Amino acid sequence: MNLNLAVISGDGIGPEVVREARKVLDRIAEKYGHEIHYTDLLMGGASIDVHGVPLTDETIEIAKSSDAVLMGSIGGNAATSPWYKLPADRRPEAGLLKLRKSLGLFANLRPAILYKELQDACPLRKDISDKGFDLMIMRELTGGLYFGARETKEVDGVMTAIDTLTYNENEIRRIARRAFDIAGKRRKKVCSVDKANVLDSSRLWRKVVEEVAKEYPDVELTHMLVDNCAMQLVKDPAQFDVILTENMFGDILSDEASMVTGSIGMLASASLNDSKFGLYEPSGGSAPDIAGQNIANPIATILSAAMMLRYSFDLDKEADAIEQAVSQVLAEGYRTGDIMSEGCKKVGTTEMGDLIAERV
Amino acid sequence: MNLNLAVISGDGIGPEVVREARKVLDRIAEKYGHEIHYTDLLMGGASIDVHGVPLTDETIEIAKSSDAVLMGSIGGNAATSPWYKLPADRRPEAGLLKLRKSLGLFANLRPAILYKELQDACPLRKDISDKGFDLMIMRELTGGLYFGARETKEVDGVMTAIDTLTYNENEIRRIARRAFDIAGKRRKKVCSVDKANVLDSSRLWRKVVEEVAKEYPDVELTHMLVDNCAMQLVKDPAQFDVILTENMFGDILSDEASMVTGSIGMLASASLNDSKFGLYEPSGGSAPDIAGQNIANPIATILSAAMMLRYSFDLDKEADAIEQAVSQVLAEGYRTGDIMSEGCKKVGTTEMGDLIAERV
Ligand SMILES: [Mg+2]
Ligand SMILES: [Mg+2]
Repeated sequence: MNLNLAVISGDGIGPEVVREARKVLDRIAEKYGHEIHYTDLLMGGASIDVHGVPLTDETIEIAKSSDAVLMGSIGGNAATSPWYKLPADRRPEAGLLKLRKSLGLFANLRPAILYKELQDACPLRKDISDKGFDLMIMRELTGGLYFGARETKEVDGVMTAIDTLTYNENEIRRIARRAFDIAGKRRKKVCSVDKANVLDSSRLWRKVVEEVAKEYPDVELTHMLVDNCAMQLVKDPAQFDVILTENMFGDILSDEASMVTGSIGMLASASLNDSKFGLYEPSGGSAPDIAGQNIANPIATILSAAMMLRYSFDLDKEADAIEQAVSQVLAEGYRTGDIMSEGCKKVGTTEMGDLIAERV
Repeated sequence: MNLNLAVISGDGIGPEVVREARKVLDRIAEKYGHEIHYTDLLMGGASIDVHGVPLTDETIEIAKSSDAVLMGSIGGNAATSPWYKLPADRRPEAGLLKLRKSLGLFANLRPAILYKELQDACPLRKDISDKGFDLMIMRELTGGLYFGARETKEVDGVMTAIDTLTYNENEIRRIARRAFDIAGKRRKKVCSVDKANVLDSSRLWRKVVEEVAKEYPDVELTHMLVDNCAMQLVKDPAQFDVILTENMFGDILSDEASMVTGSIGMLASASLNDSKFGLYEPSGGSAPDIAGQNIANPIATILSAAMMLRYSFDLDKEADAIEQAVSQVLAEGYRTGDIMSEGCKKVGTTEMGDLIAERV
């Protein structure tokens, strides 16, 4: 197969971790007989430094014409970097928001997996973490409160701020279908999270999700209120397979779920549109404080590359091979500093990439 | 002192747990020389059964004329109770919403405390729970997304739902002052939680909270984004003293925090207005499945009565006496079924109330 990838290394630890993901992808290509063509693109601070803006139209066009985008991380230290002296719409993160919008990436997938070997890092009680968990949060990414109209104005002399939360049935239907599709390839359970006892948008959400569920008779649908879900992720994360939710609830719950794993450096993410196209990136930040020191954990980016093979190219066997190589390296006791524990072998970014590539 | 209390026993386990709280209050009155006058009021299902509505105007007036309201719990089993065949605005919970609104209760206080004796129930890893925690969530209760205008309508043939999130500076200022007042009596730290990197309402929130902070130079103010706070409550709840936040974020975070204690049956709550007046109630639900069996845990209601003495009557010594009696009973190994663990002595609702009253 020919894979035409756009690569955005980005800022901070981005270039280092992307380099290791490419190393692993190259090994996959060699072993399974694929041809990968990479096009390097600038975004975020790296683009500001060259073009003065975090994302150019040309970059968007090249990204659009690729099959998928692999990304490192975007942004720097907001307190010290000159990038943050720019107006909000010219800062590094604005590039990522614009790219997501330009590419129509409405579905954000964030797996939260507890790796047996990293159980000690899980902040939950041992009898809870002993059960293990492997859940996927499907967050709507282009609607809701974060993208609604907003304004701050004086009303009768009193400063008043208004944000609006809007969803229409089409926006809900397309993300719901994505969630059911993915649940069908997993443990066949969707838990839709809303606040239907209060919000109109949640009541419409629930109604449309129930309609979509009829198209997927082999997938079980349950509903949960968002405040209860915030509790259940702490009490018993093993109960979940796919959690489907709107933008803001997904923002809160996916971060909570990632903390519940205890190993944010291990968590991949994907943002998908209506087609097979997707943007794949690690869940963590750009960590400018440790950039360039060969100590960043590249596993989240490597696992993002595996998600890319699975969701954009249907190369499930190859994705499995990467995920198994990661598990094997962990089982052999290799750790980067962020996931280091007693009795393990500490390795740097490059060595971790080598170890995983060798085991593919 | 003369304490003129309105008492809403309510539904489910409400009457049983309120009875034990009154038992403890009576003991306090006897010991410290106060006079408590109780007026029983009907609300929720109990009021529907008698008056056909969950809250009458007469009940509101009596509640208003009292010094404080002590409440049990409201509501029944939504799947089986005839109360839930009524339109939404005539159901039990509508009574509580109406009462809160009529009394102007804009500040919801929810403590989340890890009791040393109940540490085994905490879902967090032992080295995290070993640090203990005692935090207070101050949630704005009458504004934001839950009270904004909402509608569902067809837009170009597509069903669309809209909710609005509004806050004005006055609403923010009054709740912020409450939070700083209470932090001043505690460990002198306020963490204000918002989503100021996205929402206009959060930016106004942050601005006003910073203005209010200047009036309280001895209280430290920090800010945290809501998704980060959802993570930090799992990672290190000991870092928090008072968390100040808007309505929906508070709904989600206070439930998460209560689950992090592992003992919801222990958690009190208060809803306050601009004066000393307040409504005090346990955090948990009406638990209709165990009602009338003398097995419900009355401690959350008893601790709510302690909060009432502290915040509505400034009877700090008396409130301390109740809280210490609860700790002593736990230290002696007495437990209701919900918090039972090996080697402890299981007692019923009434016996637990007796034990605490005796130790006041
Ligand atoms: Mg987030
Ligand atoms: Mg709640």
